[in-house]
Amino acid sequence: MVKKVVIVGGGIAGIYVLRSLLAKREEIEEGLDLTLVKRERSGWVSTCGLPFALRGWYDIKRTEINEPKFFLDQGVDFRTETEVTGLNLEDRTVKIATGEELPYDYLVIATGREPSIPEAVAKAGLKGISTFNNEADAREIEAAMAGATNAFVRGRGIIGLQAAVAFAAKGLKTTVLGGPPSLLPASLDPDMGDMVKNWLEEKHGIQFILARKEITAVRGEGGRVKSVVIGDGEEIPADVVVIAKGMRPNVRLAVEAGIEIGDSGGIVTDNAMHVKRGRSYLHDVFSLGDCTEVIDGITYRPRLSQLASTVVVQSKVVADNIISDIKGQPSLYSISAPCLSPTVAEIGGLLVGSVGVTSEAAARAGIKTLSGKATKLVKARYFPGAKPLTMKLLFDAYSHKLIGAQMVGEATVAERVNELEIAIRAGMTAEELRNTERCYDPSLSLLVDVTIDATEKAMGMASVY
Amino acid sequence: MVKKVVIVGGGIAGIYVLRSLLAKREEIEEGLDLTLVKRERSGWVSTCGLPFALRGWYDIKRTEINEPKFFLDQGVDFRTETEVTGLNLEDRTVKIATGEELPYDYLVIATGREPSIPEAVAKAGLKGISTFNNEADAREIEAAMAGATNAFVRGRGIIGLQAAVAFAAKGLKTTVLGGPPSLLPASLDPDMGDMVKNWLEEKHGIQFILARKEITAVRGEGGRVKSVVIGDGEEIPADVVVIAKGMRPNVRLAVEAGIEIGDSGGIVTDNAMHVKRGRSYLHDVFSLGDCTEVIDGITYRPRLSQLASTVVVQSKVVADNIISDIKGQPSLYSISAPCLSPTVAEIGGLLVGSVGVTSEAAARAGIKTLSGKATKLVKARYFPGAKPLTMKLLFDAYSHKLIGAQMVGEATVAERVNELEIAIRAGMTAEELRNTERCYDPSLSLLVDVTIDATEKAMGMASVY
Repeated sequence: MVKKVVIVGGGIAGIYVLRSLLAKREEIEEGLDLTLVKRERSGWVSTCGLPFALRGWYDIKRTEINEPKFFLDQGVDFRTETEVTGLNLEDRTVKIATGEELPYDYLVIATGREPSIPEAVAKAGLKGISTFNNEADAREIEAAMAGATNAFVRGRGIIGLQAAVAFAAKGLKTTVLGGPPSLLPASLDPDMGDMVKNWLEEKHGIQFILARKEITAVRGEGGRVKSVVIGDGEEIPADVVVIAKGMRPNVRLAVEAGIEIGDSGGIVTDNAMHVKRGRSYLHDVFSLGDCTEVIDGITYRPRLSQLASTVVVQSKVVADNIISDIKGQPSLYSISAPCLSPTVAEIGGLLVGSVGVTSEAAARAGIKTLSGKATKLVKARYFPGAKPLTMKLLFDAYSHKLIGAQMVGEATVAERVNELEIAIRAGMTAEELRNTERCYDPSLSLLVDVTIDATEKAMGMASVY
Repeated sequence: MVKKVVIVGGGIAGIYVLRSLLAKREEIEEGLDLTLVKRERSGWVSTCGLPFALRGWYDIKRTEINEPKFFLDQGVDFRTETEVTGLNLEDRTVKIATGEELPYDYLVIATGREPSIPEAVAKAGLKGISTFNNEADAREIEAAMAGATNAFVRGRGIIGLQAAVAFAAKGLKTTVLGGPPSLLPASLDPDMGDMVKNWLEEKHGIQFILARKEITAVRGEGGRVKSVVIGDGEEIPADVVVIAKGMRPNVRLAVEAGIEIGDSGGIVTDNAMHVKRGRSYLHDVFSLGDCTEVIDGITYRPRLSQLASTVVVQSKVVADNIISDIKGQPSLYSISAPCLSPTVAEIGGLLVGSVGVTSEAAARAGIKTLSGKATKLVKARYFPGAKPLTMKLLFDAYSHKLIGAQMVGEATVAERVNELEIAIRAGMTAEELRNTERCYDPSLSLLVDVTIDATEKAMGMASVY
């Protein structure tokens, strides 16, 4: 009999599971029936591309890589603007707002996340205030930007900063409110985060308030936001406000279905992304993406990752396991390794990268670190593209293994994050990293790279070169 | 008593040992006396930068990073234009052409390599024919290029091709003679090498003769070369000829001193770069660089590496061992791991990279491989810098471990070679590589990178994304 898979959620997580299953559908003799249910009206949207659309690099429409028709034409029951109201794991059905119940053999939970809206904001109900989670949010923000003079962003993470850069690029006076002490604290130590802050202040004129303050009121005119009041009463003019802070896993449906939620607030899974209910993991129910917790690759504690790149790996694991379970081919099962969250972001011309733990995350987990930081051009200064890069490396003080890398610079950051992710995963020590050969061509690299300088500094050596 | 180190050879190998020792000289209480003896008249020259100087990117002079004075001012006995005539390992002295004998506590052999000059070329004694090993060669070639119409290059390795690009860039009709079947055979399989050939033919108008032919005669006019005859009599006009083929380790001094030479033709060392004489490795005599053989990191057989990047690692090992030996601090000794020869080269706007074994090298060592090849842009096409990259990955067919990577493309090649070098060193399998998260920002990378596509192809999977 035909096997039915129902995917709840149409963000990158749901879409990537769907695409992986579509590619393997022909392997299933008995047939594979695919249903995806999502709230939004879009097909597959590159949400990571939305901030660049706001900066004017291309139209928002371009971020919709496939419209719903693309999936409908392939025989997928692709339901947009549809709310799921309940998951019945006993009867194996998904209930939607119309009352219809969709039966499944395999259920995939990809319900994503939602920002924490400060109470004062929610109460006010003013136009010009948006979250920044999807295409519809981006359109709202774009509309509010037209004719605006002042912008306000709540949140100092990647999305908040990319929104701020878009506002500044369009000439808006932009203020960012975030917690102390520095920017991008999930990725960067304060010394590295301050480099990003200085860049955004100097090159983009963005103002920062990094303090333990919350939005206590919003004031409007004709139903539109005009200013934001923070803390004890400081009032900041704002015609457009973005709330990009405190992204919480959206787990209401999972909780109601009795699925276990971890300390991180995300859904608990095993390495094959099976959810847990009571004492066991369910072979026919999967969860992945922003609503799901991961195991950290350094501390081995649960946490959230909430990156598109994390989803890509998890979607393979889910699809491989569904296909293999149907085919009864255990050798094809794949698993998700503890997560190192390799991260890169272009923030107003500056590239920021990180992988593994920050100093603070290491300290919280009781790990003592040796750290080294160096700044160097990525190649000899008389070659085109010779841009500076600052790299900070963290090593476990006992084993000397690499456990974290942070970068701020103008070139080669994405590729270096991938390199150091593999070095961390391999358990490479400072001694090994220092003596690892790096390819050289003077027009492309230096004979002694910034990686080596940072490593030698962490080892307490004077850098030679 | 003060310790004396004598370094024979002033290429990158000798210079990097010298610089490493200079940086650590203050650690040695009894004092460290440093002598370097070299044939050339220069100080520290970036020989890898010379081909770009011939292309006109900068003056040849710029490749001399430090003049001899730089080292003399630091108290180094830096002897240029000086020939070493013998090494006496019993008396611990180095004899130079003047008859002077320089005593040493530690001897470093860094005598480099020399091209094989075809007999017909050597006999002719014509001007306009050069090797391409150092600054003096580059000046000769530059002089011969002035007013020349036709260029001829013997050798299809990186140096030969970079010389050919320089000639073509200056408008010379350029022919390259190399063995069959394809370019850069030490780095690239024929299918990848053919991409380089097509690029150089189409974008630079370079002509290739890839056949088992040798230069059988050279013809001149007024003592200057005018044409080259190859094989049975094909005559090719040439006002400038570069011989960049068959680089052999320069080991005459080592052989005369009774030091062991390996099957590769290079000097045998242990992992600390100590040379071997009779049945033992000598704690006070080191060898490194192009004259020295390495152990291959995949086949574990001896071979040559002859890369500046290999030298950088070896120079640390030599310097660490000299310093530690003097100080009696065994914990500081560092060693050289089996070599993977990560390689990158800019060849006329095309970037070529490789690390680990080629298919042919694997087959010669009895290793069966699974390979996968894919071509993709390095980021979404609507972002600046979205250039194509072709990647070929080789995995051991039994263990599925990555053992080789080859790349031809227009961006990000150097950084990816470094990443895959670490993946090979870590023993990463295709299954692990496929499910390793890669950082993502649409302006910098793709959600599913060409690395993943190539890996999935090697695994026999249809690529999903």
